[in-house]
Amino acid sequence: MSVNLSKTHMPSLAVVGATGAVGREMLLVLEQYNMPLSSLRLFASSKSAGTTLPFRGKPITVEALAPAWYQGIDCALLSAGSSVSKQIAEDAVNAGLILIDNSSAFRMTPGVPLTVPEVNPESISLLKAAVQSQSRSGGIIANPNCSTIILLMALAPIHRAFGVSRAVVSTYQAASGAGSQGMDELLDQTRSVLNGTTPLPKVFAEPYAFNLFSHNSALDPVSGLNAEELKMIHETHKILSDPSVRISATCIRVPVMRAHCESVNITLRSPATLQDIHRVLSQAKGVEVIDDRANNNFPTPLKATGGDNVLVGRLRVDPSQHSPGQSLDTPTLGFDMFIAGDQLRKGAAQNAVQIAQMLYC
Amino acid sequence: MSVNLSKTHMPSLAVVGATGAVGREMLLVLEQYNMPLSSLRLFASSKSAGTTLPFRGKPITVEALAPAWYQGIDCALLSAGSSVSKQIAEDAVNAGLILIDNSSAFRMTPGVPLTVPEVNPESISLLKAAVQSQSRSGGIIANPNCSTIILLMALAPIHRAFGVSRAVVSTYQAASGAGSQGMDELLDQTRSVLNGTTPLPKVFAEPYAFNLFSHNSALDPVSGLNAEELKMIHETHKILSDPSVRISATCIRVPVMRAHCESVNITLRSPATLQDIHRVLSQAKGVEVIDDRANNNFPTPLKATGGDNVLVGRLRVDPSQHSPGQSLDTPTLGFDMFIAGDQLRKGAAQNAVQIAQMLYC
Repeated sequence: MSVNLSKTHMPSLAVVGATGAVGREMLLVLEQYNMPLSSLRLFASSKSAGTTLPFRGKPITVEALAPAWYQGIDCALLSAGSSVSKQIAEDAVNAGLILIDNSSAFRMTPGVPLTVPEVNPESISLLKAAVQSQSRSGGIIANPNCSTIILLMALAPIHRAFGVSRAVVSTYQAASGAGSQGMDELLDQTRSVLNGTTPLPKVFAEPYAFNLFSHNSALDPVSGLNAEELKMIHETHKILSDPSVRISATCIRVPVMRAHCESVNITLRSPATLQDIHRVLSQAKGVEVIDDRANNNFPTPLKATGGDNVLVGRLRVDPSQHSPGQSLDTPTLGFDMFIAGDQLRKGAAQNAVQIAQMLYC
Repeated sequence: MSVNLSKTHMPSLAVVGATGAVGREMLLVLEQYNMPLSSLRLFASSKSAGTTLPFRGKPITVEALAPAWYQGIDCALLSAGSSVSKQIAEDAVNAGLILIDNSSAFRMTPGVPLTVPEVNPESISLLKAAVQSQSRSGGIIANPNCSTIILLMALAPIHRAFGVSRAVVSTYQAASGAGSQGMDELLDQTRSVLNGTTPLPKVFAEPYAFNLFSHNSALDPVSGLNAEELKMIHETHKILSDPSVRISATCIRVPVMRAHCESVNITLRSPATLQDIHRVLSQAKGVEVIDDRANNNFPTPLKATGGDNVLVGRLRVDPSQHSPGQSLDTPTLGFDMFIAGDQLRKGAAQNAVQIAQMLYC
C-alpha cells in the first residue's frame, strides 16, 4: 500500500498533445509549480513521435498514442483537440485514468466537471475524494474555453458578492488561441507585410497582419453567434451553476500573440460602489487589479503574458446605467472593466495543472 | 458679381496641417471627389513649409501660417490640432472664412455645428445659406471625433427608425488616430520586435507591437473615463440632438494601421426584427452591410481601409435582451453589431470634404 499511497500523491502523469503550444506550456507550468510527479510521459501525433522535449533539465522522448498507451498512468492532461479526446477518453477512463481535457469535447456533457479552480473547486470534489481514497475510478474533468476562464476570473467574484444579471463582453483574442500555427501565421504575415510582399492566409481566412476579424469559429446560422461566443455563454452558465446570467458576447481575433483581453460591461443584481468592486477583485485569488488612472496604467496583453494572474482594470461606474444627477459614490448596478489574461497559461495550461494540483497535492 | 458667384461655387480652399496624415488624406479625397476649387493653398508648421505636395498632377508648395494667411481664402479645412485651431479661428472667421475644423477645439461649443453629413446635414443649413447668398459671414463647423463618426454612421439610422435608448461600445482603434507618428511607431516597433530588439516607446506609453492598450488620452479622475470615451458620449448627444441616448464606451488602441472597429450592443426604444435592422442599415447612405454568416465574412479594418463606406456586420439579436423561449424573429429590443471604418477617411478627411461639398456644390 505504501507504493500505492506514494503513487496517489505523486501521480504518474501524461501530457497528450505535448508538442503543441498548450502542451509545451503545460510542461513549463508543471516545472514552475514544482508539481510532484512519480513519472511524466509525453504523447503527440505520430509526426512528432521520437522528438524530445526538456523537462526538469532532462529530455523526454515524445511517444505516439498507441493502443493501451494509458497503462501505468494515473492522470493525463489532454490538449490534442476534440477528436483525439473523444477517441481516447472512454478506454482511458475505463482503465482508471483521470483526464483533464483542454478540448471542448466533454465540456457541456452532464456530469463532467467544467472547472476553474478559483471559481468552482467543488465541481471536482467527487473525483478528488476518489483519488484520495485510491479508488482509481477514473473520470473526465473539462478545462473551460480560454476566453470563458479569463472572463470568469473577474466576473465570478463579483457575481458571488452582488450577483451579475447581465454582462456584455467584447473580446480581443490572441493568435495563440489557434495554437502555434496561429502564432506562426501572425508572425509570418507581419514579416511579409513589412517586406512589401502579400501574405497568403493559411490558418485564418482573413489576413492577420495589422488586421483583426470576427472569431474564425463557425457561426450558428440561426442565432448568428459563433462557436466561441456560444462557449462563453453556455460554459459560464455551467461553471457558475446559474443559467440566469444573461450574456452578450462578441469574439474578435486581434493581432497579438498570446494574451486575451475582454471589455466587459456588467449589470448587478444588488447595487455596489466602485470601492466594493475594487475590494472584491483585489481579494480574489488569481486576480491582480491594475487600475492607475493618473498614469494610464491598465491591463494589456503584454503585461499578462507569462504571468499567472488575470489582470483587471479600467474599473468604473457605467454612466449608461447610472442616474446622471447622482454621485458616482452612490451604490449602483452598472460597471465597466477591462481584463487581460495569458491564453496559454490561465486560459489553458495553467488551469489544467491547477486542477491536477487540486487532485493530487 | 459673376466673379463672386464663380468664387462662391468654386471656393478658394486651404488645408491647414496639410502634411499630416489627415491633411494628406484631405488632398486625396478632394482629388477623388473632383471637388470644384478656384484655388488650393496648403499650410503647415514652419518645419514643413517649403516642401511640396502633389495635387491634380501639380506640386503645391506648403506655406507656413503667417499673419493674414487667410486673405483670399473662402474655406479652410483645419487639421493641425486643437491649439492651432484655437489660435487662428477668430481672425479667420472675422475675415469671412468658413473653417471645417477636424480638432476637438470647438466641437462642444454651443452654436458650432458638429456635423456628419449623412446624420445631421441640417446642422449646417445656416452656413450653407450664407455661402449661397454670398454673405461671407464666416463660421466654424466642427468635424466630430473619428470613433464618434464611425459609430453614428451605423447607430443614427437605427436611432431614427426605432430609437436607441442605450449603446455599449468597445472600440478597436487604429494607429492613425494618433497621426502619422502613431502609424510610424506601430511599424517601427513591429520591425524591432521581429528583429529581436526592444523597441523604445515614443508616441505611446505602452509598447504597441503585438499589443493593445486603453486609449492614450487622459482620464477624468472622477469618472475614470478617458477623453476619447467622453467625446463619444458627448458628441453623440450633440449630433443626434438627443442627450437621452445612454452610452457606455471603452476605447482601446489596437495594432492596426488606419481603420477603427467598434463592437456595439444596442437597446432600442421600439422593438424591431433583425430584418428591420438589416433593411435600415442597407438603405443608409455611406453604410455597407457585410454580414455573410455562411462564409464568416464580416467587416475588418483592412476591408474598410481606403474606402468611403462604413462597414457593418455581425448583425444579430442580442440573446441577453431576448426571452430565451421566444423565436428570434419576434420583434425585440437588443441587437449586436460590429462596425469598421477608415479612420483617416470617414473618421476625418472624407467627412470634412463632404461638409465642404455640401456648402459649395
